[in-house]
This record gives sequence, C-alpha cells and structure tokens, in this order.
Amino acid sequence: MKIELKENERLDDLQLNKLKIIQNKKWFCYGIDSVLLSDFAKEIRENSTVLDLGAGNGILGLLLCGKTKLKTVIGVEIQDEVCEMATRTILFNGLQDRFQMIHGDIKNVTNIIPRESFDAVVSNPPYKKKDSGIQNNNETKVISRHEILCNLNDIIKAACYALKEKGTFYMVHRPERLADIIATLREYRIEPKVIKFVYPKINKKPNLVLIKSTKYGNSFLDIKEPIIVYDGNGEYTDEIKKIYGR
Amino acid sequence: MKIELKENERLDDLQLNKLKIIQNKKWFCYGIDSVLLSDFAKEIRENSTVLDLGAGNGILGLLLCGKTKLKTVIGVEIQDEVCEMATRTILFNGLQDRFQMIHGDIKNVTNIIPRESFDAVVSNPPYKKKDSGIQNNNETKVISRHEILCNLNDIIKAACYALKEKGTFYMVHRPERLADIIATLREYRIEPKVIKFVYPKINKKPNLVLIKSTKYGNSFLDIKEPIIVYDGNGEYTDEIKKIYGR
Repeated sequence: MKIELKENERLDDLQLNKLKIIQNKKWFCYGIDSVLLSDFAKEIRENSTVLDLGAGNGILGLLLCGKTKLKTVIGVEIQDEVCEMATRTILFNGLQDRFQMIHGDIKNVTNIIPRESFDAVVSNPPYKKKDSGIQNNNETKVISRHEILCNLNDIIKAACYALKEKGTFYMVHRPERLADIIATLREYRIEPKVIKFVYPKINKKPNLVLIKSTKYGNSFLDIKEPIIVYDGNGEYTDEIKKIYGR
Repeated sequence: MKIELKENERLDDLQLNKLKIIQNKKWFCYGIDSVLLSDFAKEIRENSTVLDLGAGNGILGLLLCGKTKLKTVIGVEIQDEVCEMATRTILFNGLQDRFQMIHGDIKNVTNIIPRESFDAVVSNPPYKKKDSGIQNNNETKVISRHEILCNLNDIIKAACYALKEKGTFYMVHRPERLADIIATLREYRIEPKVIKFVYPKINKKPNLVLIKSTKYGNSFLDIKEPIIVYDGNGEYTDEIKKIYGR
C-alpha cells in the first residue's frame, strides 16, 4: 500500500511481522517503555478484547497485534491529530479489523465504551505530575508526558470501568509513582499481582516499572527478576535484544 | 562481664564494637534481614529516640546502638522469655542506659509508650499471613514469623501512634506484601519515601524489601539501586561484605 506522509512524519519499521508505524518527529515518539510493556503483556490470550488508554500514535496496539492473537484492540486518544495519525497507521498495516482508534477523553470513558467489556486494558500514560519536572514547549509532547488532560486516578478509574471481573490491567510507569499507583489500584479494587522493575544498568536505580494487576484479585504480589537494559559495555543485554527481536 | 547461658542459648559475636547477642537455638535467630535493616537505618541522627516494634532477641536495637549515635532505643516484645533474654543481652553489653526492652503487646501500644514521642521506628515484623506457608511446630518461631499475635496493620498503626510528625519508619519485609504495605502505610498517612529491593542473585527475584517512610511525608518514592547478596560464584558481594564489616 502506498502512503503519503504529512509534514514532519516518518514511517518506522517495528521489526515485527513487517509492521510499520507513522510517527511525527515533533510529537511523542515511542520508546523502550512501550516495547517492554507490549512484551510484558504478550501473554494476553487468543480472542481477547483489549483497550489501550491513552493510545497516542497506536504503538501498543500495533505491537500487541503483532505479538498476540487478540481479537480486537481499541485505542482511546484525546489528541485529535495524534488519533488521526494512528488511524492511518492501522489502515497502512491492514489491521482495521482488529484495531480501532477512538478519539475521546478517558475521563468520559462511560460514554465511549461499554462497562466491563474488556479482557485486558493496557496503558502507557503520562508519567509526570501536572506541574513537576521540565515541561516541553511543544503542547502535544506535554500532553503525552504530563498529567495535563488525565491523571493516574483517571486512568485507573477508566481501567476499572472497562475491565471484566478478573480482567487484567497492564501499565508501565515511573518507579517514583509506585506508592500512588498501588494505593490508587487498591482504591478501585484492582490488585497488583506482578511487578517488573527496569534498571538501565545493574548498579543504577530503576527508571521504569511494569505492573500487571487483576480486577478483584487476591493480595499476593510477585516481584520478578530485574530487567537490565544495558550491560557493562553499554550494549543492550541479551534479554533486551530478544525483546526487540534482534 | 561473666555470663551464664540458659539451656539452648549461645553467645554470638556481632563483629561490631565487640557487641555480643544471646540467642536461643530453638527460637528465632537473627538473619541478614536484620543486618540489612540496621544498615538501611544507620542514617538515624544523633540523639534520636528510636522504637523497635517486635524487637525479639534485640538484634536491631543492638546493631543500631553500634552503628548510630541514637540517644535511646526501646524494644517492645510480646514474648516474655524472648524479652527477658534480650534484657540479659543489653546488660551483658552494658547498654542499659541506651537500650531498654518492654514486655508488651504492640496492639496495646497506647498503654505502653507516649504518643508521638519517637524520632524513628524500626521493625522486622512477622512476614507471613496467619495461615500461609509452612508453620513451624515451635510456637516461639511461629509467633516470630507469622502474623499470629500482630499483623501488618497493627505494626503500622503502632508506628503512626509512636512517631513524631515527620518521624521516620524503617521496615524490612517480603516483596510479596508490598501492595499491602504501601496501602496500609498510606492509610495511616505514613508515606513510603525510599525502597531498596534485595536480590539473592542478579538474575533472581527479590526476597526482601527495605522501606523507609515518613509520617505525613509528600508523595515521591525513590527506588534505589538493587542490593545483590551473592555474586556469580556464590560469594557475598562486596556491598554485603562491607555491611557485615568484613
């Protein structure tokens, strides 16, 4: 299929089932967090219905279409132009039967999708509190990275609404938010079940955390072996190479 | 000072300021968790008042007397005979001016100690839920390891009562209880501030977690570099050797 890219757009190869993604260089471009989250969630069962909260350019849904046998994935994205770009990516990959984007606000999820209708919810939400850290001048980037239009509570509330009983919620976030995350999950009776910390190097602090939770699950948390991104020579570790399909 | 040991008791050298501890071989003997917790808490300031909830044979108070310039540490222990043994350890080390044991129930802490009177609280509580895992036949061991006589909520409630505003709570626990711990701390407005995970080896799951929390603290969690106990040859890593003072 031929594709016409808009200004500042490029087509990136995902090195997975010949999937490609349209990205706008001036907006948020996907990073290792999305790749690790999709790997963490690749256990999603055949015929599952999946919801991506804050889907952005569609990277998570795209990777999950490549890595799992999910039935459908719905991506909800508040930024109109970003949502439109993701929709073109879906069409370009011929995934329109499995993957749809909805332009909408997570805070209005009750008006967008039916209650308790998803087997799994995934989210790579904005990490930073509204007024924390350095905010980029680019509005699209700020919305993708800071809790401007939705916060952690909005995401988890929406996940709780959308998930079937015993449905699974996969999220990637920053370790410094872990107490907020666990306390908020508990508030909505979504129980953290599996956590993986991602360490840039073995002697560094973790900079990402992957959390799998179950709606109405029992209390027992399995903290897994650490994921180490770079070895002593500054090269990707074998685990990361494998996840990237190299 | 001469010492007469009771049946099943032995005198162990802490390799720290010539401190020694009486331990009963049939009861709970201290492990690496207490050593790591005392190292984690060694930042406790000069002239601090410290409370140890579930002090057992007194290992934490003893190590903290050796590692910090604390003013006083009070250990609360429910098991009469264990408390008596710890008291003999204190006398043997000549620490009676800095370290006192109180025989009492953490659930009755309001009758034992004054409200909001401690700069720091430390605890190495029973890790396991009441009916979980293999319970030892030895009653003293079961009480030390399982939440028979007090549970996580009792410990954190007592810590909240005892701590001054902005006082610090140091605890070691099992990673599988982390969601319970964080949610319960939040309930009592004790904010998790620093977490260290202890991994037996670099490619294993963590088996201990060290948590520093601040009463009425702000929400920002600093998850530190991992502590790795054994290297590839099954030897203690340099970090652990240093903590043990070797």
